[in-house]
Amino acid sequence: MEQKEVSQAVISRLPRYYRYLGELKDEGVERISSNELSERMSVTSSQIRQDLNHFGGFGQQGYGYHVETLYREIGHILGLDKTHNMIGIGAGNLGQALANYANFEKRGFRICALFDKNPALVGTKTVRGIEIFSIDDLEDYMKDHDIEIAVMTIPKTSSEGVSARLCACGIKAIWNFSHTDLDVPEGIVVENVHLSESLMKLSYAMEGKK
Amino acid sequence: MEQKEVSQAVISRLPRYYRYLGELKDEGVERISSNELSERMSVTSSQIRQDLNHFGGFGQQGYGYHVETLYREIGHILGLDKTHNMIGIGAGNLGQALANYANFEKRGFRICALFDKNPALVGTKTVRGIEIFSIDDLEDYMKDHDIEIAVMTIPKTSSEGVSARLCACGIKAIWNFSHTDLDVPEGIVVENVHLSESLMKLSYAMEGKK
Repeated sequence: MEQKEVSQAVISRLPRYYRYLGELKDEGVERISSNELSERMSVTSSQIRQDLNHFGGFGQQGYGYHVETLYREIGHILGLDKTHNMIGIGAGNLGQALANYANFEKRGFRICALFDKNPALVGTKTVRGIEIFSIDDLEDYMKDHDIEIAVMTIPKTSSEGVSARLCACGIKAIWNFSHTDLDVPEGIVVENVHLSESLMKLSYAMEGKK
Repeated sequence: MEQKEVSQAVISRLPRYYRYLGELKDEGVERISSNELSERMSVTSSQIRQDLNHFGGFGQQGYGYHVETLYREIGHILGLDKTHNMIGIGAGNLGQALANYANFEKRGFRICALFDKNPALVGTKTVRGIEIFSIDDLEDYMKDHDIEIAVMTIPKTSSEGVSARLCACGIKAIWNFSHTDLDVPEGIVVENVHLSESLMKLSYAMEGKK
């Protein structure tokens, strides 16, 4: 299926479509109209039709969308029909929590190893059995394994240096939980999850409601 | 200081200004021009001037911004100059990782207790000493404590029910890590962190770079 040029706004809504369609599929729903999907997702049905139109003719007049086909197609567009090997940089609380979170693996995102500079952690394993290596072994590990994504949960003072090393090793994407904006060469994807900033937005919204 | 009507786009950039100004302050920088800040943050200086203009006249011609004043004012706007008491709903890996993350507390977000339905966890404490209560005790706890924010990390099958209970107890905001869009009464703030969706966006961007 040929993709048209798609705006960031549409793309950012795709994971949500994927989540709702997955729920419908799990409930055994075979097909759904844009009106029903609209009600469920609190999005206008014309927005749904417009959004999904970017990805070809999934909907049929008088029939609606075939849930499983649409789910599979959006999964394909999002690259979820293949396995992505990941490593975690940082084996602290958050790094281990993310590594132990089985849901990512169900979607094809597999954390293969963690790296940390803390000697007390190196050589141990997470509760799911993922091994923790020394950050000094990063280059050797990357040479021997096919890793696409690094999950970065280390303090910002170290993250720039490690990010440069990852890029030199051929990493394709960094999922960045460190509180800093990484400066990477063109072609490398950075997706930021700045938790403190999310909490500040919440706090701001709460102030406004008083 | 009187706030003008501020767009969501500006608000969503405030935490990032706050982060950069905090770094400058820690480095001992007293004042900064919009040009210097622009270079550092990779935002145009006219955007910076426009954004900060919403919050009154912090910048002075030929002087720039006084870092500490601006940092403090933005912190005030974001509601970071007071303590916000939080509870965690869900004491699994992610719930405990967030509870043990000391950085939130530095910003005034204090996790006071965790709640879980797993009897094996109830009565235990996190590594930072935060107690884990039974979810059955939620209403009693809320009656006796001044809690503003709930951090929700439970599976989506339970999150709607617990969210309704939290709202009935007078919660002001929910920081939602559950993979579902919560339906709450008007006046209650929900800030979503859908980690899987962030990972899907990363995956989509990676596909595009091939």
